[in-house]
Amino acid sequence: MARDSRYDILFEPVRIGPLTARNRFYQVPHCSGMGYRYPNAEADLRGMKAEGGWAVVSTQEAEIHPTSDLTPANEARLWDDGDIGALALVAERVHAHGSLAAIQLVHNGLHVANRYSRMIPLAPSHAVGDSHDPVQARAMDKSDIADMRRWYRNAAIRAKRAGFDIVYIYSGHDMSVLQHFLSKRHNHRTDEYGGSFENRLRLFREILEDTREAIGDTCALAVRLAVDELLGPAGITSEGEGRDIISALAELPDLWDVNLSDWSNDSQTSRFSEEGFQEPYIRFVKSVTTKPVVGVGRYTSPDSMVRVIRQGIMDFVGAARPSIADPFLPKKIEEGRIDDIRECIGCNICTSGDNLGVPMRCTQNPAIGEEWRKGWHPEKIAAAETADGALVIGGGPAGLEAARALAQRGVDVTLADAGHEWGGRVSRESRLPGLAAWARVRDWRIGQLNTATNAELYLHSRLNADDVLQYGIPHVALATGSHWRCDGVGRTHRTPLEFLGEGPLVSPDALLSLGADAVSTNGPVVIFDDDCYYMGSVLAELLARAGRQVVFVTPQAQVASWSVHTLEQGRIQARLIELDVRIIPSASLAGRTRDTLQIACVYSGRTRSIECATLVPVTARLPDEALWLELKARANECADAGIRSVTRLGDCLAPGLIAAATYSGHDYARGYGAAPATDDVPFLRGDIAALWPSSGSEILSR
Amino acid sequence: MARDSRYDILFEPVRIGPLTARNRFYQVPHCSGMGYRYPNAEADLRGMKAEGGWAVVSTQEAEIHPTSDLTPANEARLWDDGDIGALALVAERVHAHGSLAAIQLVHNGLHVANRYSRMIPLAPSHAVGDSHDPVQARAMDKSDIADMRRWYRNAAIRAKRAGFDIVYIYSGHDMSVLQHFLSKRHNHRTDEYGGSFENRLRLFREILEDTREAIGDTCALAVRLAVDELLGPAGITSEGEGRDIISALAELPDLWDVNLSDWSNDSQTSRFSEEGFQEPYIRFVKSVTTKPVVGVGRYTSPDSMVRVIRQGIMDFVGAARPSIADPFLPKKIEEGRIDDIRECIGCNICTSGDNLGVPMRCTQNPAIGEEWRKGWHPEKIAAAETADGALVIGGGPAGLEAARALAQRGVDVTLADAGHEWGGRVSRESRLPGLAAWARVRDWRIGQLNTATNAELYLHSRLNADDVLQYGIPHVALATGSHWRCDGVGRTHRTPLEFLGEGPLVSPDALLSLGADAVSTNGPVVIFDDDCYYMGSVLAELLARAGRQVVFVTPQAQVASWSVHTLEQGRIQARLIELDVRIIPSASLAGRTRDTLQIACVYSGRTRSIECATLVPVTARLPDEALWLELKARANECADAGIRSVTRLGDCLAPGLIAAATYSGHDYARGYGAAPATDDVPFLRGDIAALWPSSGSEILSR
Repeated sequence: MARDSRYDILFEPVRIGPLTARNRFYQVPHCSGMGYRYPNAEADLRGMKAEGGWAVVSTQEAEIHPTSDLTPANEARLWDDGDIGALALVAERVHAHGSLAAIQLVHNGLHVANRYSRMIPLAPSHAVGDSHDPVQARAMDKSDIADMRRWYRNAAIRAKRAGFDIVYIYSGHDMSVLQHFLSKRHNHRTDEYGGSFENRLRLFREILEDTREAIGDTCALAVRLAVDELLGPAGITSEGEGRDIISALAELPDLWDVNLSDWSNDSQTSRFSEEGFQEPYIRFVKSVTTKPVVGVGRYTSPDSMVRVIRQGIMDFVGAARPSIADPFLPKKIEEGRIDDIRECIGCNICTSGDNLGVPMRCTQNPAIGEEWRKGWHPEKIAAAETADGALVIGGGPAGLEAARALAQRGVDVTLADAGHEWGGRVSRESRLPGLAAWARVRDWRIGQLNTATNAELYLHSRLNADDVLQYGIPHVALATGSHWRCDGVGRTHRTPLEFLGEGPLVSPDALLSLGADAVSTNGPVVIFDDDCYYMGSVLAELLARAGRQVVFVTPQAQVASWSVHTLEQGRIQARLIELDVRIIPSASLAGRTRDTLQIACVYSGRTRSIECATLVPVTARLPDEALWLELKARANECADAGIRSVTRLGDCLAPGLIAAATYSGHDYARGYGAAPATDDVPFLRGDIAALWPSSGSEILSR
Repeated sequence: MARDSRYDILFEPVRIGPLTARNRFYQVPHCSGMGYRYPNAEADLRGMKAEGGWAVVSTQEAEIHPTSDLTPANEARLWDDGDIGALALVAERVHAHGSLAAIQLVHNGLHVANRYSRMIPLAPSHAVGDSHDPVQARAMDKSDIADMRRWYRNAAIRAKRAGFDIVYIYSGHDMSVLQHFLSKRHNHRTDEYGGSFENRLRLFREILEDTREAIGDTCALAVRLAVDELLGPAGITSEGEGRDIISALAELPDLWDVNLSDWSNDSQTSRFSEEGFQEPYIRFVKSVTTKPVVGVGRYTSPDSMVRVIRQGIMDFVGAARPSIADPFLPKKIEEGRIDDIRECIGCNICTSGDNLGVPMRCTQNPAIGEEWRKGWHPEKIAAAETADGALVIGGGPAGLEAARALAQRGVDVTLADAGHEWGGRVSRESRLPGLAAWARVRDWRIGQLNTATNAELYLHSRLNADDVLQYGIPHVALATGSHWRCDGVGRTHRTPLEFLGEGPLVSPDALLSLGADAVSTNGPVVIFDDDCYYMGSVLAELLARAGRQVVFVTPQAQVASWSVHTLEQGRIQARLIELDVRIIPSASLAGRTRDTLQIACVYSGRTRSIECATLVPVTARLPDEALWLELKARANECADAGIRSVTRLGDCLAPGLIAAATYSGHDYARGYGAAPATDDVPFLRGDIAALWPSSGSEILSR
């Protein structure tokens, strides 16, 4: 199809200093959890973005010196010349598809603990690091400042040697020494690098000038700047020094890439913000510089993108998460395939990868992070070698993705779901407060399946073993989902709690089906959250908004403790407090009567009673595996019926994230018709073992 | 010197199946934070233990399959043949010094989230993983059990090919699938692998038998078993199933290595337990098996070691931490150099390395983890090339270590301290509740310095700049320490809190000098802990034990939150609760009057007032750098006086851990007289960059 002319403006070339970007789609620097540790994976990830049409593709922050050491996080690294090769591969992959390659240099200042290098972190003033480690940064003196300038210069030269087109100087997310110098919170110096605004700006300006000189006139110089820290007068604000910085340095770089700080403010989830949420903070930028401006805000709608260009808010539509969910977003707009865009749901599973030191994953795009090690292209799958049809039972995220990808491979696929709507848990969860965008997981897949001629979809179709045997379709995939346990078993309690049933018990599933009505209005409802991600808090929100008196008990010290990795924990706990949910952390369950719950301090074991009219245990799930167990027991009948494989997918195999479900469905479709799994590692290993000499006596030295 | 005959028994050879260990010193498997990711570092670490006289040296747990993936932790890995080379190097290094090399095979079952491999974890029954990730393990069926047995067998064969002498099957720390099968908490199966004791034991027994067959009769088979989980009847106990397991399998392995579970119980710090704390739990073992027995308990005293052998508690003195603090512990006993033993202080800084995904470090042994990348031998340093003398100012951990190591290098060193005792902060902190063993940091160094003929030590000697200039000693090291801030600045408050002084304020330093007497007995004392490691809680303990009413306020959700990495957090918070300390988590400071403190919820900002007669802010420290600043300002005079370098060490450079201070002092001594630092990375890089082709176009593939 041809491009809709409404979107022509998005495909205008834009100058960035000496270079020209072929369109306005700009993948801003974002962490991938791969970096220097998994160099092939990093290169193929970035190359895929270029192939998908992003005119500029950036790698993640590159540590310029071992005093900026984020180990065990896997950032990019430019500590010495040895790092050039891996980054050159990134640039090469990006260039192969006609895009510009950008690299973001960083010295992380007091943000790092230098756990691996064991060197002392550096900061404008003596300060505790913000990594939580028992490590302090030391105040830089003039010789340290000279070192810092030289290190930046060395790194810029190495970046150019690696083939990058755009070199970024980074002052964002409270993670860069340059932001620390700019900040009145961190900079308490009394010399010419502290005090007045112009003094606090000095190092930033010097390093920009140094970098310009180092990279010469064939590369472009970009700045990534936090224009607002959302700290009010205690921080940089878009009305205050954020504006002042850009005004002061307006024409010095070739491009301004502007956003919010810290990371949790920049990468807000859809639970807490809408597309375009950064516009109020960044719209001033183009009024104070003539240079092109990049902004972000989880844009997935081409109409919104056109709007922000036309309104003069930005020149490039920046994206991190939308480019992860769909590396081919620009190409799809270009080719008039708007409905094919796989929209980011704003869940931040991507950030959890980097935060946990592993390659990123994505709820919407199961191929992310697998480009190299499994050879997965997000848009292409080879046609299946078998003509055998598939029956997929269950239309939740795993079943939908399996069916969709099988159909893409040319397999005749029948998808059946017992319910009255597609999406399974995704549909139910998307009706909970703040999670509406999660329905995109369903909508994109149903959209794709509806255009497939080889996929038949049936709702209201609960299939039992006899049905499956009768159909005799050769390959059967069970994606029947899971249900929440009501016996208290989870992380904390490993065996069933007999006392739970002494009073009214409502399962999370009942709330997912019936909403708040599932819980009586009499007396307090206690949510016992041993799951520790979003569900407990979302149900608390649902009930509190419906006027219930809610008590939130968790064995963890924080509400939704795992959500620190999705950058949401602070906002979640604040929201429950706002809604007057009573929070009791660090408590397990010890007993129950009709009206009370006995809880125990996880530290001391001391017990106490709290009022409890209804208990909602959010602890763990069990697979809905009845059909699987029956088919396994009737394996001979299956064989006789011509059924050659029965496979569990998603939650039916092991309850987990929605991201795990789509991955499971996709993985099934990729392996469809292939030889059964062996004991071999089912992916290329990106780690050092792959490069190690096979004999121990060949000793590696650098 | 000759060995004391009292210790002869420790040097008896002991048979382990087909092999003979040359003595009774046994380095049990322990994590190093290096593993598969830093293979050279791992090999040299283990080789150093062998050189130091440990008859058996074990590497850490080796993951046998990608369904057991602890990424980003750096364990050993035997996923495929590609891993053999790196582990062969470990065995080779151990053999080079005449020791036996052991490897501990593990499938981590429900302990892992498989963040990197993205495969589903496996468990006896459906279960939430214990990693805190939103990942569930699935119940293994018979075909999974067959897979598991085959994976163990494959790994055992690979271990043998890598050259290991002893192959461990591991059921400990609640981290192994075999322990999960044994455990009534985790195993809810109804088939022949669940239910009765014999059924729960089945897989363990099968895998032992399989492994024996796989490794043949030239390797020994060892078991590492948790004999007590300290959970009472809910878990394995040494009177119950711990004993039953060993009785049932008594003669099957060639060696029993027994300990407590989980890791925090096995590796208790000196704050919570004494040397030999595991004896009550393991002393039964030798009564039910004829095979040699290994136990641990932080033994550093040769007399205790002799005792546990003579009392028939164990055949081998197992050690992890004491072998980290002093890899040459056996050799020193053998050579009659008891006073040279660098005793473990039981602080668990070593465990924090592994827990944070980086190579381990040690408070007592600055060379640990640096054997390969910096070429540091824990016992040997080359003589200095310069005859220039050194003046070290400050006799805390950094100054003592610098002076000691300089003296070892043959440098004439003068060590001066302003105070009346050696040790600086170490001496002061060792008087706090539970920290007495920390004085070993001082005692060992003073012991070594007292035997040096080229070191002069002066107490009561506060030196000012004029003194330093007058001495004119060519190299001056300033280890003048640090002091606690009283302005509230730390992680949470980045600028001084003007209101703090509205009521009585007592600095941690006053408590360190004067004890609890520094705080009035009238009204509650509030400790505001924004430091988040041990100090706040230890001061709370000191004050509570002295009868003060203590309130503990912290912006973190837990008391001493960083101490999760030293495995102490649970015990610390339980202790404060026991002592009736009132704990207020998730609160920052918002204001103060004479008798009240205003605190703010870190989530909502909501404020409230609490009674506060005295405030102790434990937030951050400032270097005692006055002398440094003056000498820097008088650089020309220094030069004229023949002073060629002035260097800050330890807390005076940047306040940090005691481990950072000894490391800083040691690093200074190592570099003494060498050329000044360059921009090069000051160590060999063990990461993948070192192996990467220098041109990006040479694409790595496996």
